[in-house]
Amino acid sequence: MEVFKKHVFVCVSGKTCPTEGSVDVCDALRKEISERGLKTQIRINKAACFDQCGNGPMVVVYPEGVWYSHVQPADAKEIVESHLIGNKPVERLLYDGRGRIT
Amino acid sequence: MEVFKKHVFVCVSGKTCPTEGSVDVCDALRKEISERGLKTQIRINKAACFDQCGNGPMVVVYPEGVWYSHVQPADAKEIVESHLIGNKPVERLLYDGRGRIT
Repeated sequence: MEVFKKHVFVCVSGKTCPTEGSVDVCDALRKEISERGLKTQIRINKAACFDQCGNGPMVVVYPEGVWYSHVQPADAKEIVESHLIGNKPVERLLYDGRGRIT
Repeated sequence: MEVFKKHVFVCVSGKTCPTEGSVDVCDALRKEISERGLKTQIRINKAACFDQCGNGPMVVVYPEGVWYSHVQPADAKEIVESHLIGNKPVERLLYDGRGRIT
């Protein structure tokens, strides 16, 4: 019943993410996916608030449930290549529900 | 690194979901979660288009990646009790990327 190999949600709502550039992060991820012809396999979705305000821009990748905080557009290429294609999460951006892990 | 036990996304965008009552579905799911005191464990998020237009209101539950189509507010209690709490997906609503499974 797999609809997408990876389903990525970018918070573009709430108190802080929109003011921290989350839409630019979403656009950057989409550009990397589109350029690689992966749009039918990997979905980048805008979403409303994840209730993690202050840690944004926030990104969560399912089905694995890997969370990233303070993501910048410049991180998009690494997230796509290492994690979304290579299945190796980008450790320096990992978030555990309280803050950055590393 | 689990932030939520279940992370539920309801499409409230795109061509069809908003006209089919998806916001009411989101509200109904939130009411069931709130009444049971589960808001910190189970997150019901509004999201933009899942590219499954015509099958809405669409709901996807992660981390398991279970998809539901044509969800109605009246289905919310069963989704919450059977699936989100009981881990038993509601088979009659299951969606596989093309249409209803059953």
